[in-house]
Amino acid sequence: MDDRLKKQLDFCLEIDKEKNIFRQTHLSGHGRNENDAEHAWHMAVMAYLLKEYANEEVDISKVMLMCLIHDVVEIDAGDTYAYDEEAKKTQKEREEAACERIYSLLPKDQKEELIAIFKEFEENTTAEARFAHAMDNLQPLLLNNSNGGSDWIEHGVSAKQVYSRQINTEKGSKILYEVTDDIIKSNIEKGSLRS
Amino acid sequence: MDDRLKKQLDFCLEIDKEKNIFRQTHLSGHGRNENDAEHAWHMAVMAYLLKEYANEEVDISKVMLMCLIHDVVEIDAGDTYAYDEEAKKTQKEREEAACERIYSLLPKDQKEELIAIFKEFEENTTAEARFAHAMDNLQPLLLNNSNGGSDWIEHGVSAKQVYSRQINTEKGSKILYEVTDDIIKSNIEKGSLRS
Repeated sequence: MDDRLKKQLDFCLEIDKEKNIFRQTHLSGHGRNENDAEHAWHMAVMAYLLKEYANEEVDISKVMLMCLIHDVVEIDAGDTYAYDEEAKKTQKEREEAACERIYSLLPKDQKEELIAIFKEFEENTTAEARFAHAMDNLQPLLLNNSNGGSDWIEHGVSAKQVYSRQINTEKGSKILYEVTDDIIKSNIEKGSLRS
Repeated sequence: MDDRLKKQLDFCLEIDKEKNIFRQTHLSGHGRNENDAEHAWHMAVMAYLLKEYANEEVDISKVMLMCLIHDVVEIDAGDTYAYDEEAKKTQKEREEAACERIYSLLPKDQKEELIAIFKEFEENTTAEARFAHAMDNLQPLLLNNSNGGSDWIEHGVSAKQVYSRQINTEKGSKILYEVTDDIIKSNIEKGSLRS
């Protein structure tokens, strides 16, 4: 086997570890915690099905790839809960080191390509990144809402915190932000979110 | 919310159940059983990274989408182990009923589009379906090999059975079939596969 293919297969095996990185979100039906690989899969399928609601025209293949790889860095850096302010202080540094180590397993051209896509997601200044971020927010919101907002109750999250994060959903899709807004309001009403 | 968007979101929530469908393959590091959503995610990323090894030119976005949705039917039909000859007798019937129920949650145009992609995968007569099948075979093989072939040992699988399934890998990628062949031979040598 040549060196290029060996590197690619080593990377393919390494990312298997993403299935062991668990998030705060629970699966629908009051299930177990979701892991990063499942979350990425769900986001990519949703992106494809909901692409007509993107504010701007998007290269949907790029959005899907972005969704699929956006959490690879968490293999080393771990999941940082959206409302954990302490952990968020060190998130960038942890994820940059992870990005360098993990993508360096790939041949140089693919390392550079995937890091560029990951950084595009992080910087959130293109139409594709904005729509991928909308999926990153909407996907756990749908699951959490299906469970009566139990993830928010568990962490004592406030509506202000959720709205602050969901600004990114509006940047990617005004129509899906309306859905988000309705879900937040109904969860405030029933007491799952602190108002 | 209009009817179209409601249907799309209902489908997005329904497919969350794919995360509860477990396969016979175990995660690397002698981990737990893998589920269908993780398997689909892994296949889609691998397809993108290994696309240069497809025998024919492929529309890689289509391959990725095919990988992502190819097991949605297992939400109702369950996972059928590749070497379970009894279960395979009823697999087609179970999966066709599941296909109709689950994709009917979507608006008609998207139902038709996704069923067409699923059927294209199943029929395996296009370049995209052949490469997606190569991923469907290679992904669990890599995991199983990383665990010393423990899934084959557990089920007493023979090399003949594995070779018979891996014909599909060769149709999608001769180069990746060489990797597969090396892995099979090394597992016969160390006794993980019955020769």
